[in-house]
Amino acid sequence: MEAIEDLALKPCTSSLYLRPYRLCYRQNGTKKVWDFMKIHDSVSILIFNTSRQCFVLVKQFRPAVYMCEVEKHHPQLFQNWDNESVSRLEDPLPAAVGVTYELCAGIVDKPDLSLEEIACEEVLEECGYHVAVADLRRITSYRAGVGVTGSRQTLFYAEVTDQMRTAEGGGRAEEGELIEVVEIPLEDSMKFAYDETLQKTMGVIFSFTWFQDNIAPKLPKNKIKAP
Amino acid sequence: MEAIEDLALKPCTSSLYLRPYRLCYRQNGTKKVWDFMKIHDSVSILIFNTSRQCFVLVKQFRPAVYMCEVEKHHPQLFQNWDNESVSRLEDPLPAAVGVTYELCAGIVDKPDLSLEEIACEEVLEECGYHVAVADLRRITSYRAGVGVTGSRQTLFYAEVTDQMRTAEGGGRAEEGELIEVVEIPLEDSMKFAYDETLQKTMGVIFSFTWFQDNIAPKLPKNKIKAP
Repeated sequence: MEAIEDLALKPCTSSLYLRPYRLCYRQNGTKKVWDFMKIHDSVSILIFNTSRQCFVLVKQFRPAVYMCEVEKHHPQLFQNWDNESVSRLEDPLPAAVGVTYELCAGIVDKPDLSLEEIACEEVLEECGYHVAVADLRRITSYRAGVGVTGSRQTLFYAEVTDQMRTAEGGGRAEEGELIEVVEIPLEDSMKFAYDETLQKTMGVIFSFTWFQDNIAPKLPKNKIKAP
Repeated sequence: MEAIEDLALKPCTSSLYLRPYRLCYRQNGTKKVWDFMKIHDSVSILIFNTSRQCFVLVKQFRPAVYMCEVEKHHPQLFQNWDNESVSRLEDPLPAAVGVTYELCAGIVDKPDLSLEEIACEEVLEECGYHVAVADLRRITSYRAGVGVTGSRQTLFYAEVTDQMRTAEGGGRAEEGELIEVVEIPLEDSMKFAYDETLQKTMGVIFSFTWFQDNIAPKLPKNKIKAP
């Protein structure tokens, strides 16, 4: 995953994926303008493998995260958005600065499928576990990126066993996904959650905390490893 | 806050706030292209008022959230991004569908100020409490919107008293901010956190949970209201 080369950056005035809109409105009589983007709602799934008492996360190189770090070292790269020329990054930062730990997740872009069905597809595609809709527990939903996107994310919990792993996972290779499946032992999970040197989403931190409060107290004692 | 009128939507090819970029790169030898946006890092603050044993949140109308709901009822509004004409929303949804509960928060756009100093400014501007840098406890940081923005959010905790409220809050009126300060009693907070009919960010849910695990056990017993 960590070989990232030949980076080139340019402004993007027409993207299939990022489509800015402008909303004009009056709020309590005052005229306002707000620019936002339409993105899909999403689902994410906290996966706990009971066979080996570990969480199953995904790890990927995220260009947007990487470029946040690049900007701190090369702010001038981003200063001329109106200049349409391509900027090559001659001395790139290590790819690791753009790698994040995340919950298995996916966008809601199939109108025929329920949120649960999409979640099951993502668990199989990204992590290789065969999970049925009935195996999912809905934790909650919330709004993400309220300033820019405002999409709804729904969070599920799924328990899996080694026997349910029917594929490798790793994402859809044909779509260029390069996803590494990683396991975080339960006993290390809260230390991991608060270790800021390992970049992660709030979904990881929140769902690990939720597990400690809601699932861990009910785990069979004989399954908890001796220290 | 709830009078939202004269809504008009149009594609936005040039925004001061939303600037899409395209990154071209090779990952493990495979050419890739990723569109992303540069947005500022941010801070958010869980505020707990010990005088009245309640959390202090902000509530605002969020155009991006509102338009997610509008799209579910009027998907055709968003189907022709290339058509530059303005679409008027003749029969708008109630403003309430775009109102979210959030932690007090702000973007990191002042290079001379530390994250803590920016957090203190936001607590005063949005919620009216005077908090010193030394009063802040850093909870953790994480990456937000890893697909699109990847910015870093840093989460703080601040305890306040009624005596520390020196202003009304409500945001910068001169910038058109219309922010309502709301108080959530501690005793209702977990029910509030998981009530999906009240739209909120994951930051609210996570930080309330964090408080239950880290702060509530240490609260003076005489301050906890009898049921």
